[in-house]
Amino acid sequence: MEATAEDVEDALTADETISDVGVAASTDSIFIFNSLLFLIGGFLVMFMAAGFAMLEAGLVRSKNVAMQLTKNVALFSLAGIFYYLIGYNLMYPLGSWSIGADETGGYLGAFGVAVLEGVGVARDAADDYGYASTGSDFFFQLMFCAATASIVSGALAERIKLWPFLIFTIVLTGIIYPIQASWKWGGGFLDSQYGFQDFAGSTVVHSVGGWAALAGALILGPRIGKYTAGRVNPFPGSNLALATLGTFILWLGWFGFNGGSQLAMGTVGDVADVSRIFANTNTAAAGGSVAALILTQILYKKVDLTMVLNGALAGLVSITAEPLTPTLGAATLIGAVGGVIVVFAIPLLDKVKVDDVVGAIPVHLFCGIWGTIAVVFTNDAATIGGQLISIIIVGVFVFVVSAIVWFILKMIMGIRVSEEEEIAGLDLSELGMEAYPEFSKG
Amino acid sequence: MEATAEDVEDALTADETISDVGVAASTDSIFIFNSLLFLIGGFLVMFMAAGFAMLEAGLVRSKNVAMQLTKNVALFSLAGIFYYLIGYNLMYPLGSWSIGADETGGYLGAFGVAVLEGVGVARDAADDYGYASTGSDFFFQLMFCAATASIVSGALAERIKLWPFLIFTIVLTGIIYPIQASWKWGGGFLDSQYGFQDFAGSTVVHSVGGWAALAGALILGPRIGKYTAGRVNPFPGSNLALATLGTFILWLGWFGFNGGSQLAMGTVGDVADVSRIFANTNTAAAGGSVAALILTQILYKKVDLTMVLNGALAGLVSITAEPLTPTLGAATLIGAVGGVIVVFAIPLLDKVKVDDVVGAIPVHLFCGIWGTIAVVFTNDAATIGGQLISIIIVGVFVFVVSAIVWFILKMIMGIRVSEEEEIAGLDLSELGMEAYPEFSKG
Amino acid sequence: MEATAEDVEDALTADETISDVGVAASTDSIFIFNSLLFLIGGFLVMFMAAGFAMLEAGLVRSKNVAMQLTKNVALFSLAGIFYYLIGYNLMYPLGSWSIGADETGGYLGAFGVAVLEGVGVARDAADDYGYASTGSDFFFQLMFCAATASIVSGALAERIKLWPFLIFTIVLTGIIYPIQASWKWGGGFLDSQYGFQDFAGSTVVHSVGGWAALAGALILGPRIGKYTAGRVNPFPGSNLALATLGTFILWLGWFGFNGGSQLAMGTVGDVADVSRIFANTNTAAAGGSVAALILTQILYKKVDLTMVLNGALAGLVSITAEPLTPTLGAATLIGAVGGVIVVFAIPLLDKVKVDDVVGAIPVHLFCGIWGTIAVVFTNDAATIGGQLISIIIVGVFVFVVSAIVWFILKMIMGIRVSEEEEIAGLDLSELGMEAYPEFSKG
Repeated sequence: MEATAEDVEDALTADETISDVGVAASTDSIFIFNSLLFLIGGFLVMFMAAGFAMLEAGLVRSKNVAMQLTKNVALFSLAGIFYYLIGYNLMYPLGSWSIGADETGGYLGAFGVAVLEGVGVARDAADDYGYASTGSDFFFQLMFCAATASIVSGALAERIKLWPFLIFTIVLTGIIYPIQASWKWGGGFLDSQYGFQDFAGSTVVHSVGGWAALAGALILGPRIGKYTAGRVNPFPGSNLALATLGTFILWLGWFGFNGGSQLAMGTVGDVADVSRIFANTNTAAAGGSVAALILTQILYKKVDLTMVLNGALAGLVSITAEPLTPTLGAATLIGAVGGVIVVFAIPLLDKVKVDDVVGAIPVHLFCGIWGTIAVVFTNDAATIGGQLISIIIVGVFVFVVSAIVWFILKMIMGIRVSEEEEIAGLDLSELGMEAYPEFSKG
Repeated sequence: MEATAEDVEDALTADETISDVGVAASTDSIFIFNSLLFLIGGFLVMFMAAGFAMLEAGLVRSKNVAMQLTKNVALFSLAGIFYYLIGYNLMYPLGSWSIGADETGGYLGAFGVAVLEGVGVARDAADDYGYASTGSDFFFQLMFCAATASIVSGALAERIKLWPFLIFTIVLTGIIYPIQASWKWGGGFLDSQYGFQDFAGSTVVHSVGGWAALAGALILGPRIGKYTAGRVNPFPGSNLALATLGTFILWLGWFGFNGGSQLAMGTVGDVADVSRIFANTNTAAAGGSVAALILTQILYKKVDLTMVLNGALAGLVSITAEPLTPTLGAATLIGAVGGVIVVFAIPLLDKVKVDDVVGAIPVHLFCGIWGTIAVVFTNDAATIGGQLISIIIVGVFVFVVSAIVWFILKMIMGIRVSEEEEIAGLDLSELGMEAYPEFSKG
Repeated sequence: MEATAEDVEDALTADETISDVGVAASTDSIFIFNSLLFLIGGFLVMFMAAGFAMLEAGLVRSKNVAMQLTKNVALFSLAGIFYYLIGYNLMYPLGSWSIGADETGGYLGAFGVAVLEGVGVARDAADDYGYASTGSDFFFQLMFCAATASIVSGALAERIKLWPFLIFTIVLTGIIYPIQASWKWGGGFLDSQYGFQDFAGSTVVHSVGGWAALAGALILGPRIGKYTAGRVNPFPGSNLALATLGTFILWLGWFGFNGGSQLAMGTVGDVADVSRIFANTNTAAAGGSVAALILTQILYKKVDLTMVLNGALAGLVSITAEPLTPTLGAATLIGAVGGVIVVFAIPLLDKVKVDDVVGAIPVHLFCGIWGTIAVVFTNDAATIGGQLISIIIVGVFVFVVSAIVWFILKMIMGIRVSEEEEIAGLDLSELGMEAYPEFSKG
């Protein structure tokens, strides 16, 4: 195509910002950078599925490891399919809300399967040339949906039946998660009416997983022998090396989780923001981990590795609602408070006999709430009222709907294995195989 | 360098496409984007070496774990050296075919070591400025070669001697793989005469590993005690947590495998295609995993975790020949068929007494064939005839040459450990060390 | 903003190099590419923390695994906090040296916490628009600092107390590492006066970790029972699958370590160099691994998996001082020499009764020295004198200061657990928990 000097000038005027300082990336490059951010962020968040699987496999007893692994692979797969079939358009209705219009912000998104752009799409055929490819956005968002489901599996481990759990996963990833996510990230009513700020999902992802897990844990009840005669009996995790590996993988994936949530990387400001987010995410995890390290030493005279791991995850969840605006120091403190929360909350949950096998509720729900509130300290766009009301609305919605689903599943097919099966372990009773068949148990 | 207004215009005319819609990336940026795709894709595929190692270490019995790990590290290292020394130029002769010319498409590539561009290369000194850096291409292609070798090690586990296996690896990565890969990806006769379509290597990589493994498994024979008096005795894997980790790592690496095979990311169409590929790759794995989940529940009344893992891998192999053109729905189905194939093929192989320790032949060979055929459903450029003839030509070549190499190795040095060594386990007999020395065996 | 034709021309003259061949990336794109290299490199190096943790957890005995994991998570967290609080500005004083001015090259950097650029920074407000975002640089450099600390933990495993080790980590990451790193990478006196060449840190990172570990190992003394009556008693690692996984993760992370150290990716020359580095890094690891494979077969008649793993790491350390200028063949040889070094050095260290649990001193210190010297073979900018004097200055500084710190810690609080605690294992005695509580020990 021939370009005249005028064309050059016009194009530059339209598409590149020329200042005394420098030249912007071309519109194609911006599209590529943004899409690339989603792809890199997406594969990092995808790997969190392995992180959750290893963390949970390491924290359950060996007789339930194969089942925990099965649940993690299966839930990630089902999330992939049902987010495609239902979730994506429910979450991003792009104006086609089934209930609520753009003026009110929308309450229920659109129904229909996700459709990607065509092969080798041209600029003017791209769904949103000024932004990023639909495929990269779908890939990235799917991984958030899957992460939400991964949170649930850990809390309910060692006693829930496989298939009811998987059916719940389908409802969670296909319906519950996308609907509430649409309220904020799809431009729905929490975003437009309450000015809710949740950068990467302390509430939209983590607390949602936590609420769903809490509902399940209450309806399931604790594991046999966990609470006896006023005592809390510890059931130590069978493989802390795997649990540590899982934590490091989650830590790694979180750079994609929070960094990718900048949603753009094609300008100086955007890539500098992604960089800030990487640095803040890391330091918040460090803060949470060190807080748990010191606190368990003080409280118990011995450092507790699983608390340190959960402390790191707590720091990560806490910074997720606002990983951009804090300074490094503020991010460290926000993470450290998260670490303190889990050290106190894990025994507290046991006191009220809510049996959360891996500490998912303290980490993802409590720290998710803390992180969402903490946004107001560093981001002027957030109000304490808007944050609290949004936390409550999302919490009530997810908890109530989850409880109903769990209850229906309990009525129809039962959600808990029999006492004998639980004592024998789910691996032998439900799967008929062992994770470590050759290692004799002490 | 001074640029006049004419230069600007000329440069833009030549190197940037200015349309009403937007401005292309500069030629440098395109070069950088393409190279970056290879680097990211390459390190993801590199990590698949860890995935194969963990999958195989988890699926063998504990007495053979250290050996399986040794084989995986060693084969990856040897692939790196021999692909550099011989393979790369055999695979990409760039017109300098030893047998066959560009008109016929070529049959045997060039001999010589790989040579990268100089340090700090300038635009006009780059090997292919319109494309990507040679180093990034070499790095990416090497990892595919190494993956091919990784496929073989799992099938032949628990009975093959270390050194014959490694010598075979050298032949496979230095000679067999590159020659057949040149026929398609080096522009050879399968590409030019048969219009063979194999986007990321369902045939060129996966079935090749599978054929080499099949030849080896037939010549080696089954493990002692595997098939007795008409019975197939299960030898459960010693560590399903590692096997699951390995599967997730492979799943992650596959985004690089398939996404990187777009071979370009510097235009809107290319990055949108890479995005489609990421999404399709994930959903195919999910399809394969869910198919195996449901099918094992129906067939055996219990879900089988190792089948679910192999189902996910089957889905990944199945979509590898064409991860771009299918819709998300079609990709899910292509992957699901892969999952069904492995659930039926794994016991079938046992029935004919082909002892494939990890299921590599069903996953990589059978699903590699399926995926290559399935290209015709979504890509008009593929013909069923061209696909089948290519599958057969590659299969016959690899199977026959592999069988000859295995046979020569058997004659010269023996390929199988002694009966006592096999029963004692390769770790103690061949390496003199144990993978888990402190854990007593049940 | 309106742009006239002159503006266009000016901007292009200033910011894009137009040649007959092609068009440079815009200044924004260069900034983004460079920052992205740091972010990708940074998350890959971050994952090395998991690699070190798995390697070390796999190579210690099971009674010390939980402690080794705790140390690895805690040191990585503390490095994150103290590099932010002190280290970053000590290492990169940007002209504000506390001792020494820019003319002499500087000896002691600036004190103060790291400060990132503001949110959504504009071009002319960026700290260094011609280069990359500060946040990305901080993130990348932090991970190098943390890697240095990870090296120490392995050598001193199974006998050092938790808290003294963590206090040492704080001094190392906040003070020792940054000061000596400033001498080269902060533009200090080793860089300006001696022309020291250390591309990615064979000396600045790896030998520093090695010297600190050596000082600690000498002051700590060997483990109980390691050396008895002239015999060296092997204490086999408890989980070689984890050790292998750790090695593969480190191998993966090294692409970020060396590739990211190109520090730029926005031009053809830079991205081609990053590509060379990826390829050379891989082949050096392969060379080291294969050298150890062959050598242990020759020396011991049996391949030794842990030597092969350490051989790969030795190759990686050896190429780190100069991963760019060697050809693939030279890189393979440099790595192979590293592999030979560790095979001979590990028993040698045992002979002089320096008890290095995982082989960190041979791998990181000896091969760090070798790699630093080997720079002179392929990079004319390096002189043997400049390399040797720099190795010695860094070595003396780190060894002496580390020894003083270890000695003070020994005086104040003791650095070694009691004999009974060591025999019982640090997991039970210091943490009160086990890594594998259910698996009975053989």
